[in-house]
Amino acid sequence: MLELYHAEPVANSMKTLLCLKEKRLEFVSHYVDLLRFEQHQAEFVAINPNGQVPVLVHDGAIITESTVINEYLEDVFPQVRLRPRNPVHVAQMRTWSKFVDEYFCPALSMIGWHLMVRKVAQSLSKNELDEVLARIPLKEQRDKWATIAGESFTPAQLEESRRKIGVAIERMEKLLQQSDWIAGPEYSLADVNSYSMVAGVPRFFPEIMNVQLAPRALNWLQRMNARPAVQAAQAMPNKVPEVLRTFGG
Amino acid sequence: MLELYHAEPVANSMKTLLCLKEKRLEFVSHYVDLLRFEQHQAEFVAINPNGQVPVLVHDGAIITESTVINEYLEDVFPQVRLRPRNPVHVAQMRTWSKFVDEYFCPALSMIGWHLMVRKVAQSLSKNELDEVLARIPLKEQRDKWATIAGESFTPAQLEESRRKIGVAIERMEKLLQQSDWIAGPEYSLADVNSYSMVAGVPRFFPEIMNVQLAPRALNWLQRMNARPAVQAAQAMPNKVPEVLRTFGG
Repeated sequence: MLELYHAEPVANSMKTLLCLKEKRLEFVSHYVDLLRFEQHQAEFVAINPNGQVPVLVHDGAIITESTVINEYLEDVFPQVRLRPRNPVHVAQMRTWSKFVDEYFCPALSMIGWHLMVRKVAQSLSKNELDEVLARIPLKEQRDKWATIAGESFTPAQLEESRRKIGVAIERMEKLLQQSDWIAGPEYSLADVNSYSMVAGVPRFFPEIMNVQLAPRALNWLQRMNARPAVQAAQAMPNKVPEVLRTFGG
Repeated sequence: MLELYHAEPVANSMKTLLCLKEKRLEFVSHYVDLLRFEQHQAEFVAINPNGQVPVLVHDGAIITESTVINEYLEDVFPQVRLRPRNPVHVAQMRTWSKFVDEYFCPALSMIGWHLMVRKVAQSLSKNELDEVLARIPLKEQRDKWATIAGESFTPAQLEESRRKIGVAIERMEKLLQQSDWIAGPEYSLADVNSYSMVAGVPRFFPEIMNVQLAPRALNWLQRMNARPAVQAAQAMPNKVPEVLRTFGG
């Protein structure tokens, strides 16, 4: 049995939902309500000690980290293929996915936290915030919450993240000048892993992703939005109020 | 033909050298002298625009990022197997390697830069330093050089990196309580990718990695040091003067 613990179809939850939908795999959906901090509750931390979604449970085996989950799904369910045939393109798929995880996603995340999670933090009383902080397993996550509940990130940090989003879209545009998909001629996990990161960029950063600067990336996004698997993943429950939605939500 | 552009058998260069040696693959070695900044020179940047080693060139195809290079070698040369048979262990191998790349290695790197690369930066005149900085392709790398040439990292940043090294060794110890190797009963890329990071920890951080706190990790390191492939990789040229050597050099 396949089970997925996930939040809204955005960010890293979306990465795994989209992979499952592309592969047309049946799974039991366990919705984790991040706005109610269910990811820090004992029963979830027993599954993932880091207190983070998504988590895949396959016949009892626990797999964490969305990028790793998607390669695992490819290893175990290769019938709908999402890894290129050419090993050089597989390497390109992994280099790009690593770049998304280490560079593009943290930059987007900082601005998303500043715009959205900050509103959540500010809606809590001092006591409520202390209770939330006390339950967060990872020090890095506790520090991030303390930052946005306080002065938030500095203008220089936010500007550096905006710069990195620009670098990421520029790099994507160059790859798409060479082939139809990010890691070569075949649709792959490089595309699956990028969708939720790129989806909101034209709306939130029109100065970065527009028809003059990034026509191929925009065309890629249109082709992604037309995919039945993307639409099926988008149709998963989304309980985040409109006012708190940022990228792709 | 396989070619590897690499520096000393430490850090990320060691990861790929060790993988090649374990697989007993013949390759053309291109030594890149980091102390002479050859990684920023035009002919190398033409191969890797990021100006970083290691780089694998296989029949003309360029593969960057040591973790990706090692999975590529496994995809193309699976005869000596370094990916576990059980896909759950493969996922564990990838989760651990990702943790090394995103958490453990940056923490070690910060302290290594502070202890070693800082000496190099301080040995340069203002003009020489400006010339070096001007040739570094990645802004993040330029910023890091500017930091260590100036005030260096703050005591709080260095202490946070020390804390993370402690977390990494603790996590490793727990995994090795469950199985002989990091990602299960089989020796895998999780071990290969960790060796160069762990090798210097008992010497530089004896308060973190000692026989009381981390007996399994120490035993793992002894078993690694005894492997012929580790010894073959260690025997590769090392031009770094003793005074500048930190972890594993």
